[in-house]
Amino acid sequence: MIKDFLTNPAAIEEKSMQIIEEFLGKRVFPPGEGTVIRRIIHSTADFDYADLTIFSPGALEAAQEALLSGKCRIVTDTQMIVAGVNKAVLASLGGSIECFVGSESVREMAAAAGITRSMANIRYAARESGSGEIYIIGNAPTALLEILNLADEDRLNPSLIIGVPVGFVGAAESKEELLERNIPFISTRGRKGGSTVAVAILNAILYMLQEKAGQR
Amino acid sequence: MIKDFLTNPAAIEEKSMQIIEEFLGKRVFPPGEGTVIRRIIHSTADFDYADLTIFSPGALEAAQEALLSGKCRIVTDTQMIVAGVNKAVLASLGGSIECFVGSESVREMAAAAGITRSMANIRYAARESGSGEIYIIGNAPTALLEILNLADEDRLNPSLIIGVPVGFVGAAESKEELLERNIPFISTRGRKGGSTVAVAILNAILYMLQEKAGQR
Repeated sequence: MIKDFLTNPAAIEEKSMQIIEEFLGKRVFPPGEGTVIRRIIHSTADFDYADLTIFSPGALEAAQEALLSGKCRIVTDTQMIVAGVNKAVLASLGGSIECFVGSESVREMAAAAGITRSMANIRYAARESGSGEIYIIGNAPTALLEILNLADEDRLNPSLIIGVPVGFVGAAESKEELLERNIPFISTRGRKGGSTVAVAILNAILYMLQEKAGQR
Repeated sequence: MIKDFLTNPAAIEEKSMQIIEEFLGKRVFPPGEGTVIRRIIHSTADFDYADLTIFSPGALEAAQEALLSGKCRIVTDTQMIVAGVNKAVLASLGGSIECFVGSESVREMAAAAGITRSMANIRYAARESGSGEIYIIGNAPTALLEILNLADEDRLNPSLIIGVPVGFVGAAESKEELLERNIPFISTRGRKGGSTVAVAILNAILYMLQEKAGQR
């Protein structure tokens, strides 16, 4: 019986969103922000994200503008995020997503400079960086700090940072640093975050753009 | 300053585990189970998993035996899990991990049978299935239910099911079904779970085996 219902993924998603909606009941979010927050909760079953998720003013507009440029480059710190992002929708917008952490060049760069591979991944990406990339960090505080560092030195100029590293050491601190910059961001306060949260945020934005395009 | 510390990933992990240890303070887990639970908390920053995570008797022994067979086949429901599992350690044990959800064959099978692609992924894997596979489900309740269904029909004989689908519809129910079978399992009660949790469980087991091997 439950299985009959479950063979309809669209019905499952609708019912899930209804349950989330009931829980959030009295809460009011700006429209796009509410959509992102609901997708994070849908992906984690963790209502804490209703309070933890933060957006800089205009972050969603910056994200949509970057993605609609037709050649948006996204750089991330984990292969899990590359795997989880809806690449069909991203490709339909002419965008791409890359993580160099496992590459030989990044390994060598990290060893030579005495830095983590997560940091080298960002430095490597920045080399071929023009401007307007989206950076999406779900795991490594050092990756997020390296982005901020390179931006301070004008070696990076991201259109948006989705900065949601998770963990007990450095994650919260790196996200506090992010809040102090003048770069559009979406983030989560404190220790929580992770690849699943990062993917939920980016996919929510992609689905909003897809929906808008469908309505035209 | 924080950055100097952060350039040492081993130190970060040690410090993180210390913080988790302090929080868990009074809790006592069976040794291997505690290691798995700590890695889940490390990956999610969510202490709820100390209470939510459950193991069937002998589940960890079954997992280790399967992984040490030298040809362990692991089947999963998401590419995020494939991406997140430490494939270097898995390969060093002669194991492999696969997800067929995106394949054309699975797409066709799902359309022909009127089932979800998550279910078809399992049926497809079962076709070439011998016995003793590990199934690891982080997202789709229908995938977990399909494994149980095929096992009931003797078309599958897994050595272990890591069953941690996440969500508001079907996830908790599918995990309750799992508990009623006579198959070794690791699971999470209720709505929480997901690819990150699934990956943390499998990697914790892989690292325990790696550590044991190093001590020989």
